[in-house]
Amino acid sequence: MGTRVDSLELMKQLSRSSPSKIVLLVVDGIGGLPRPETGRTELETARTPNLDALASRGVSGLADPVGPGITPGSAPGHTALFGYDPLTADIGRGILEAVGIDFDLQPQDVAARGNFCTVDSSGLVTDRRAGRISTEECTELCQQLDGLTVDGVTVIVRPVREHRFIAVFRGGGLVPQVTESDPQQVGLAPVTITALSPAAGKMAAVANRFAVRAGEVLAGHYPANMVLLRGFSEKPHFETMTEIYKLKPAAIASYPMYRGLSRLVGMDVLDTGPTIEDEFSTLKQSYAAYDFFFLHVKATDSAGEDGDFDRKVKVIEQVDEVLPELTGLEPEVIVVTGDHSTPALLKAHSWHPVPVLLYSPWCRPDRATEFSESACVVGGLGRFPATQIMPLAMAHALKLAKFGA
Amino acid sequence: MGTRVDSLELMKQLSRSSPSKIVLLVVDGIGGLPRPETGRTELETARTPNLDALASRGVSGLADPVGPGITPGSAPGHTALFGYDPLTADIGRGILEAVGIDFDLQPQDVAARGNFCTVDSSGLVTDRRAGRISTEECTELCQQLDGLTVDGVTVIVRPVREHRFIAVFRGGGLVPQVTESDPQQVGLAPVTITALSPAAGKMAAVANRFAVRAGEVLAGHYPANMVLLRGFSEKPHFETMTEIYKLKPAAIASYPMYRGLSRLVGMDVLDTGPTIEDEFSTLKQSYAAYDFFFLHVKATDSAGEDGDFDRKVKVIEQVDEVLPELTGLEPEVIVVTGDHSTPALLKAHSWHPVPVLLYSPWCRPDRATEFSESACVVGGLGRFPATQIMPLAMAHALKLAKFGA
Repeated sequence: MGTRVDSLELMKQLSRSSPSKIVLLVVDGIGGLPRPETGRTELETARTPNLDALASRGVSGLADPVGPGITPGSAPGHTALFGYDPLTADIGRGILEAVGIDFDLQPQDVAARGNFCTVDSSGLVTDRRAGRISTEECTELCQQLDGLTVDGVTVIVRPVREHRFIAVFRGGGLVPQVTESDPQQVGLAPVTITALSPAAGKMAAVANRFAVRAGEVLAGHYPANMVLLRGFSEKPHFETMTEIYKLKPAAIASYPMYRGLSRLVGMDVLDTGPTIEDEFSTLKQSYAAYDFFFLHVKATDSAGEDGDFDRKVKVIEQVDEVLPELTGLEPEVIVVTGDHSTPALLKAHSWHPVPVLLYSPWCRPDRATEFSESACVVGGLGRFPATQIMPLAMAHALKLAKFGA
Repeated sequence: MGTRVDSLELMKQLSRSSPSKIVLLVVDGIGGLPRPETGRTELETARTPNLDALASRGVSGLADPVGPGITPGSAPGHTALFGYDPLTADIGRGILEAVGIDFDLQPQDVAARGNFCTVDSSGLVTDRRAGRISTEECTELCQQLDGLTVDGVTVIVRPVREHRFIAVFRGGGLVPQVTESDPQQVGLAPVTITALSPAAGKMAAVANRFAVRAGEVLAGHYPANMVLLRGFSEKPHFETMTEIYKLKPAAIASYPMYRGLSRLVGMDVLDTGPTIEDEFSTLKQSYAAYDFFFLHVKATDSAGEDGDFDRKVKVIEQVDEVLPELTGLEPEVIVVTGDHSTPALLKAHSWHPVPVLLYSPWCRPDRATEFSESACVVGGLGRFPATQIMPLAMAHALKLAKFGA
């Protein structure tokens, strides 16, 4: 018996470049829970004639991004959709924050999340968030810290929002296994960062020296007169979607985090506007240049997180209205799904499986006549891990060779 | 890329203690096969208005305890329900027999199953079961053997039933990888026990010397004048359900084996009476003190094993009648399932997947309006490994943190 071939290895072996096109439309947090008064979820409440028509011609199912019962964050939700095992493709907190502001990470970078904080004259933390200074003030202070060099390492500092920033340590030889400096409560001094592995000694020393230097620079800037650092992590190495699937992939996403995640797996990130219409129009304009599109709609998730059932319904209806822009392009494969469920009733991401609709001239249609959670329960794709969406899309685009003779 | 996290490791990372409560009601062997005359299984024949009402508000599916086609014993059936991989959580025969009489195993114990047998004057076995002596006689003979010490090892001997007993070797340094002494046919002498690994030499020597001593003690007790030993095994180490799920778990089970299995995974085993009503009343009394209850109903399995379709139907109806005692407590999660199927038509455990019903205010209901095998086929939980029941229960009790950012 040989070694067992894993799923991505199999894709690398079987994938073939071809002119056919795949569009993966991710309606973030699309899955929901029924409103008690009606027994219908957000997706079941929305009037979606175009999605329903596509479901009638396509095949549906329910996907688990990480596993049954597991509520995914946005990062594992998306890595699973792109075919990577979310349980191994771990993306650190600092990296995710950097990705979330569209920061262009280099291979050796270590990123940390930072807070501006307030310390008293004895150096004890009195406010871990420096009174939540404005984003403008944060931006100004970051400019003062940006570009400091410590032991040959350049520290790039960029604002995130309010008191939050990222510090990216660039210079090589840095290993991110270090503790954090945030004492997690007031009345204590920032904690000295220590190495959790022998190789991480340099990172710990550099981080501590940077914190001291930052304290000097910020001395006169009460309440933001010190920094706290945590979530040290390095840029994860993903084999690119081109290496795995032989695709020329493009991402259309108005939110920075999703652009960043797409960049990590080797997609070209296209310029687009803030609305759903902008994103669909970008798809149309760049349609000839790529054979795989990841199109990300954020507003469903935001509405779900806000607990706004009706707004989530409206966003789904908005997606339905522009859908003909996509179907009119006649890609060989259209997948409509989410990276996780975000039921308005829970005001949060949830573990509930995510509706999936796949249309292709080569699919085997099921009996579903609408795109809804309850129709997906008995859909032809069954219940399956979200990591299988890419192999299914590739197969339906006739981009996979036969396995074995 | 990190190392892949396994399912229990993930539960350890994500589980959070909270006041919400989970009740896992295991109706042993609940799954069945249709009676040819009606085309309806035991569960489908039973009148179960309360279970059906719960199914209407809940979500159903079919679980495989070990895997499709695999008929589980009670031990793997239950370890899977508690979330442990039944293919790695191996419980030896001797240990299971000890657990089955509620014997309180210590960490270093090695347990073996024993038979009283008959040997002739040349020492050849003439009856491997000593004419199936009465349980009373077995008990008396066990008292004579109990407490013998061999090479510093104490041998604890306890009756099971008829000619069967357990021998527990307590004293440390014992490794259970040894052969058995049962020749498996008459006309041969008991086989000398040998070590299967170098470390097991002491165990083999002790077991053989114990058998010789037992023969001396039993010399005048024809037909039970010798012992045969097999199934040497050590107490398995399970991480407790408290370590994994941060639960305070309690078991309510009138049959010793299920109490023993619960103890192996760290549950508090509550005193209860022999009837289903007793068990539900114990649940009510101890409801405040725990956040997880495993409630075990044995009589369905016994009826199935006896091939008594109608009796199994009646036991299911009895469970349905007392169900309001449970639902009235309003736990955040109720799971009703079995550890395996026991179709009366087969008079045995079977490989058929097991009906699962999960109710929680946070579940996404499916279209099922009754609890039955055929409704479960199209239920919202789909078909899934039984080891996922605990992650699902934990998620619906809002006891799991989000995975990844």
